[in-house]
Amino acid sequence: MTIVDHKILRNAPVAQLDRAAAYGAEGWGFDSLRAYNIFTRINPMVQNKNYNEDEKWMREALKEAHLALKKKEVPVGAVVVYENKIIGRGHNQVESLKDATAHAEILAITAASNFFDSWRLEGASLYVTLEPCVMCAGAIVLSRIERLVFGTFDPKQGACGTLYNIPNDERLNHQVEAVPEILKEECSKILIDFFQKLRSQKATTNGGNH
Amino acid sequence: MTIVDHKILRNAPVAQLDRAAAYGAEGWGFDSLRAYNIFTRINPMVQNKNYNEDEKWMREALKEAHLALKKKEVPVGAVVVYENKIIGRGHNQVESLKDATAHAEILAITAASNFFDSWRLEGASLYVTLEPCVMCAGAIVLSRIERLVFGTFDPKQGACGTLYNIPNDERLNHQVEAVPEILKEECSKILIDFFQKLRSQKATTNGGNH
Repeated sequence: MTIVDHKILRNAPVAQLDRAAAYGAEGWGFDSLRAYNIFTRINPMVQNKNYNEDEKWMREALKEAHLALKKKEVPVGAVVVYENKIIGRGHNQVESLKDATAHAEILAITAASNFFDSWRLEGASLYVTLEPCVMCAGAIVLSRIERLVFGTFDPKQGACGTLYNIPNDERLNHQVEAVPEILKEECSKILIDFFQKLRSQKATTNGGNH
Repeated sequence: MTIVDHKILRNAPVAQLDRAAAYGAEGWGFDSLRAYNIFTRINPMVQNKNYNEDEKWMREALKEAHLALKKKEVPVGAVVVYENKIIGRGHNQVESLKDATAHAEILAITAASNFFDSWRLEGASLYVTLEPCVMCAGAIVLSRIERLVFGTFDPKQGACGTLYNIPNDERLNHQVEAVPEILKEECSKILIDFFQKLRSQKATTNGGNH
């Protein structure tokens, strides 16, 4: 490996390497059949997909994921859509902003709230390439978003069908319709490629040290 | 009631009135024995209280809650403490910032991350007057905070013993020591008083309309 590779690896955040060790290995990836089965068991009625529209907006979320990738961030992107218009965009910027709360969804929700001049995003839909984590699922419920559409399940942190099902918790004062697996392959591939690259960099460096 | 009261009520956010209808009524308040029992059942070992230190920092979180109250926000405050120093403060500003994600904990975490120049708040403690919700509990885990100390349980939205127990979820890649009920009475009273005032304003207005 070249010196450049070493440099990239030294700069790779530890958390990304942690995740790289778990994701996509041994066929257990973001397009996990297991997670899908859990989701459909929990939400048998919520399969209200509108493929043309949903794919159109998910492509915009994917553009945001590519912006994250350019910054060497875990590539996740999100957009908030209201009346056929994007009113907020965001991509993961945990490393760039040095803030664990700077997930794509949180940034998109804050941007959309600025547009609405209100914290209530009633009637809005959030499109995100990866199943939201606990924090983001909580934010989606709090902001009264009507519909959540996500690309691929997150077997490690997903809180919308995988580990938890926050959008459908009737004890909370708002529920969100959740639609999984829109542009699943593209949303999954960008993440798998990212973590595979990290893993191969890590393996090369480890070899170099022996 | 006076015209001024009407004006206050018209300006009272609907979400606050929603919550006012549920909190503190019929003796089921923030100091809920039921929530406490759930918590101690889930976390039998996590009662590692350090009263003098914890009360000192919780008083700082209460100062933040009073700042929220002045802005007519639901009065919740938080501080992040590292090596015996406050490195981040925050109070609920959902209405002021018009952003559902602007909870006290999120703002305090972002401030502390600025101080650390890192998203990893390892070794830091977060003090918050109210049990964190799903979003905030998720943010606390993501930011690698070591210890969470909270004032009073939240029977409606609490995610650290009441509805969920996010800080102790071993499936997530970090666990947080959680200590409940430090300065419980003060932390509870400021919330109960706030919602009782909203309820009485609502009742007066409803009467006026008949």
